[in-house]
Amino acid sequence: MKILALSGSLRRESINSAFCRATAALAPAGVQVDVYSGLGEIALFNPDLESAPPGAVKLLRSAIRDADAMVVASPEYAHGISGVMKNALDWLVSYEPTVRKPAALVNTSPRAHHAYEALREILATMSIDIVSAASVTVPLLGTCTTEAEMVASPDVRRRIREMIEALALHLEGPEGSSASFPV
Amino acid sequence: MKILALSGSLRRESINSAFCRATAALAPAGVQVDVYSGLGEIALFNPDLESAPPGAVKLLRSAIRDADAMVVASPEYAHGISGVMKNALDWLVSYEPTVRKPAALVNTSPRAHHAYEALREILATMSIDIVSAASVTVPLLGTCTTEAEMVASPDVRRRIREMIEALALHLEGPEGSSASFPV
Repeated sequence: MKILALSGSLRRESINSAFCRATAALAPAGVQVDVYSGLGEIALFNPDLESAPPGAVKLLRSAIRDADAMVVASPEYAHGISGVMKNALDWLVSYEPTVRKPAALVNTSPRAHHAYEALREILATMSIDIVSAASVTVPLLGTCTTEAEMVASPDVRRRIREMIEALALHLEGPEGSSASFPV
Repeated sequence: MKILALSGSLRRESINSAFCRATAALAPAGVQVDVYSGLGEIALFNPDLESAPPGAVKLLRSAIRDADAMVVASPEYAHGISGVMKNALDWLVSYEPTVRKPAALVNTSPRAHHAYEALREILATMSIDIVSAASVTVPLLGTCTTEAEMVASPDVRRRIREMIEALALHLEGPEGSSASFPV
């Protein structure tokens, strides 16, 4: 199973990015988690360029196409998802392999419900297959903010394991694709 | 009165951009409407760079600072505001002159209520002063999509005039600043 993890923050010490990296670090055998590092390179969305997008957009699209599932984690800025994340999603709206791609939604700040709900609405509108059992709210803010702390935390380890297992079960299930691998 | 008009679309034939240009074309004497053309040049938001932002961000911030009021028009993509618009706003969240800046919200597609409501929530969270009497829903999609058509439309002319008048009244009023000019 290949999982593509997207963080909507470009901050070096971003909790969302750290959570994505922790997910990669904790991935079990048979599961490959790639943390996408190129969202900051993507040009601002222009519908006139959709059919011939810039190279960084093509790279993102290829990564989405090649992934069995996604992990999507966005910070909340001013009660909205980050422009970085929305801009990346805008380039994917009309990209066919995005449709029905299973996704786990991650909320690293339980008080930040506006962005999480907006992200859910946007992904659902894009026909991304939000896997509820894999979508986690993890109260990390102020307590567990680095990849090392997350990897060392039994609670975070458990939630990441459960998230990956839920994605795997979804892919194996009658509604998913035919991926087969140990979890 | 100086109004800064922001369109959240980079599409060449964007209805939101055309509405901004029509607003500039129809501005009465004493009212200057600048349509901001640089949102596509702004780097993706990085909180680490907030205190020393790229040049294009500084230009946007100066334009906001120098304006008495804003007109904000965003397309709806996948039930969210455009990444282009959100990215620009992300750079303004912590920019003090944005606070209490009067703004007219424009919705050029009445069926697109998700983005309009999200934009309202985001601007309110940024302590931008949304002027309800100046916020207009204009059913342009499919009927009146170019600047020339808007400028020629009695209905659109009336709505733009009322929008500008409402911004002017707000600025003159006891809760506004002390701007004084004819409308």
